[in-house]
Amino acid sequence: MEFQLDHAKEILRRTPATLNSLLRHLPEEWALSNEGPESWSPFDVVGHLIHGEEADWIPRAKIIMEYGEKRTFEPFDRFAMFEKSRGQSLGDLLDRFEQLRGESLKELEGMNLRPEMLGKRGMHPELGVVTLSHLLSTWVVHDLSHIGQVVKVMAKQYTEAVGAWQVYLSVLRR
Amino acid sequence: MEFQLDHAKEILRRTPATLNSLLRHLPEEWALSNEGPESWSPFDVVGHLIHGEEADWIPRAKIIMEYGEKRTFEPFDRFAMFEKSRGQSLGDLLDRFEQLRGESLKELEGMNLRPEMLGKRGMHPELGVVTLSHLLSTWVVHDLSHIGQVVKVMAKQYTEAVGAWQVYLSVLRR
Repeated sequence: MEFQLDHAKEILRRTPATLNSLLRHLPEEWALSNEGPESWSPFDVVGHLIHGEEADWIPRAKIIMEYGEKRTFEPFDRFAMFEKSRGQSLGDLLDRFEQLRGESLKELEGMNLRPEMLGKRGMHPELGVVTLSHLLSTWVVHDLSHIGQVVKVMAKQYTEAVGAWQVYLSVLRR
Repeated sequence: MEFQLDHAKEILRRTPATLNSLLRHLPEEWALSNEGPESWSPFDVVGHLIHGEEADWIPRAKIIMEYGEKRTFEPFDRFAMFEKSRGQSLGDLLDRFEQLRGESLKELEGMNLRPEMLGKRGMHPELGVVTLSHLLSTWVVHDLSHIGQVVKVMAKQYTEAVGAWQVYLSVLRR
């Protein structure tokens, strides 16, 4: 499928509500359990998404619009949330994400992107040349992929509890 | 994590809202696109979840409560929705799922399950002996796993659109 800005916005707009519905007021052991060492809990994922709003998507889109390939993006810290989320509740993080996502979408709206601007090029510190439409598509896929991570981590808490059904549930082996 | 009935209900209760937030009024090409031959679209997944409410979870729980291991469950048709969903809109299916899930949870509530009843045994046509708590845990994991499938299928529509970012997005290779 080709990137379509209105579709992308439509999906990005939904993510806070999806996370609210999955996670808000969930018993803490579900929100804080991960898949073992080096893995992320739903709480960690929401923190990571917050950091993406602050340091990744719109900031990088602006760099592309202003500087094109001449200014390489700042590397994105995938683990920043372990420090930044400390002391906050899951409800705090969900609120913050909802607020930031709303602001990001307003900024995106304000860019008045015409189709011919989507091919504008930028410079990723590891991947090299990318385009604005690659960046915005990645934002969409990144959201969806982390929603998938949240439900996978939750599902895995019941790996033993499902008994013999384990063999049918491939999510438990990923 | 051990199965806890109140936690399970809390998660099962959320699934209609999560699917609404992900899918309702989504452009049709997102709701109807799958991952290629033999794979399911978000539309198919919602149809499958509907069939689960009608033919799997509560019906099997009742068989366990009434007959124990003496009556083997009916095999569950994983593909029933391809026929049953025909001619319906995604909105129809989301409405129907929400209604059925509400009824299922009421029935579950009405069973007044005490902890000692969760170990009650039933007979699965392929897996052999299972317990009521295995069944209810599987219901939870099944929900979460199909939410994961929905977001994975959606993410994959942008496999090409993300350009060089493909290498970072493992969801696109599952």
